Amino acid sequence: MLQLYFWPMACSLASRIALMEAGIEARYHMVHLWTKKVLDDDGDFRAVSPKGAVPVLVLENGERLTESAAVLQYIADLRPELGLAPPPGHPDRYRLQEWLSFIGTELHKGFLFPTFWYKDDAALAKPRERIGQNVAIVAAHLAGREYLVGERFSVADAHLAWALTLLRPAGVDVAQWPDLAGYLARMQARPQVKAAIGIETQLWKTVTA
Amino acid sequence: MLQLYFWPMACSLASRIALMEAGIEARYHMVHLWTKKVLDDDGDFRAVSPKGAVPVLVLENGERLTESAAVLQYIADLRPELGLAPPPGHPDRYRLQEWLSFIGTELHKGFLFPTFWYKDDAALAKPRERIGQNVAIVAAHLAGREYLVGERFSVADAHLAWALTLLRPAGVDVAQWPDLAGYLARMQARPQVKAAIGIETQLWKTVTA
Ligand SMILES: N[C@@H](CCC(=O)N[C@@H](CS)C(=O)NCC(=O)O)C(=O)O
Ligand SMILES: N[C@@H](CCC(=O)N[C@@H](CS)C(=O)NCC(=O)O)C(=O)O
Repeated sequence: MLQLYFWPMACSLASRIALMEAGIEARYHMVHLWTKKVLDDDGDFRAVSPKGAVPVLVLENGERLTESAAVLQYIADLRPELGLAPPPGHPDRYRLQEWLSFIGTELHKGFLFPTFWYKDDAALAKPRERIGQNVAIVAAHLAGREYLVGERFSVADAHLAWALTLLRPAGVDVAQWPDLAGYLARMQARPQVKAAIGIETQLWKTVTA
Repeated sequence: MLQLYFWPMACSLASRIALMEAGIEARYHMVHLWTKKVLDDDGDFRAVSPKGAVPVLVLENGERLTESAAVLQYIADLRPELGLAPPPGHPDRYRLQEWLSFIGTELHKGFLFPTFWYKDDAALAKPRERIGQNVAIVAAHLAGREYLVGERFSVADAHLAWALTLLRPAGVDVAQWPDLAGYLARMQARPQVKAAIGIETQLWKTVTA
């Protein structure tokens, strides 16, 4: 069985959404991101992955795959019949990779990560200056579109639904961009997305209680 | 003919290396990243791509593809016989995606981008704190390995060769990690990598003269 190392509401939520949308059962291990402890057994998370970052997907053969863009494509390709990623070689596959990269670099690493990890205002002034421009690019793309890529839900939507869910606690109100707010509401209404966010919201309350 | 929008020594250098390693001729347009002007004709770069960031690859059908991870995989797949990326579906393809993501998120967006774009020390203290740990992860992976993925040069090496080339001007001395320094020297000795860096170093001197 696949295993996913995660921290509630962190970027590993996108991988949980992908697994649930794919109908793939997995074992989930909660990691404390600050102490680098695996909460199951108080184990050392850096022994699982030297990066010390979630997501980490443990494959059936025991290998560990990291980085959301890779993990999400791996999960999608396990169930090609569901179309969670356009097939390899299809022009839309590069669009999927383009969005996964944009979300991982500009929204996540350029803004969400410093916001929740660095906290101090001096470190955050520049990322805050840039985030609106990057969100506006996503919003413009979504005008008149149901999904990020093609005509169906893909793992790029799983990634974006996570990032947009965190924008508000990070101080960016997506209501400024009606196309984006509408998209986020649609994504959050999907049964599997809703269930995944529900599970992690509950866990989040437990760990921070 | 493919067209690449670039700024000398910026991350678009990885795409130039990939094109040259693939033996693909392309038309190159220099963009001024601060003024967002295309230098050929003083045109508006944001009309080419609203992101205003390089690389932008213009495909044969006129569509524009952005994001290094997507552009590099697109270029590799144009010449499957060269093995610049493991074939889609091969387990190593996910390793390629994993490295492209790590370089794009942790080395580039987490460190190189703020270093060259934000400049002020307050904004940079945290990224500087983290970069050594991330470089060490790459160095450990390269111990006893010739290439990042599998047994041959891939577009992940093009991406990493660019990032490592910029680490020194960004204040990180790769000589601390002998496996990394050896790898970088090997990559920079490849005729196409050397030629690509040579072209952009010259252009860089021209634009900053
Ligand atoms: N580039 C990675 C980023 C992973 C990442 O930054 N994860 C965060 C949580 S959202 C983390 O585990 N941070 C802990 C750390 O970096 O020490 C990806 O896209 O998966
Ligand atoms: N996530 C993008 C990053 C692109 C990027 O940051 N490019 C820089 C040069 S290395 C740029 O054009 N910056 C100008 C700007 O962001 O306004 C990628 O991986 O291609």
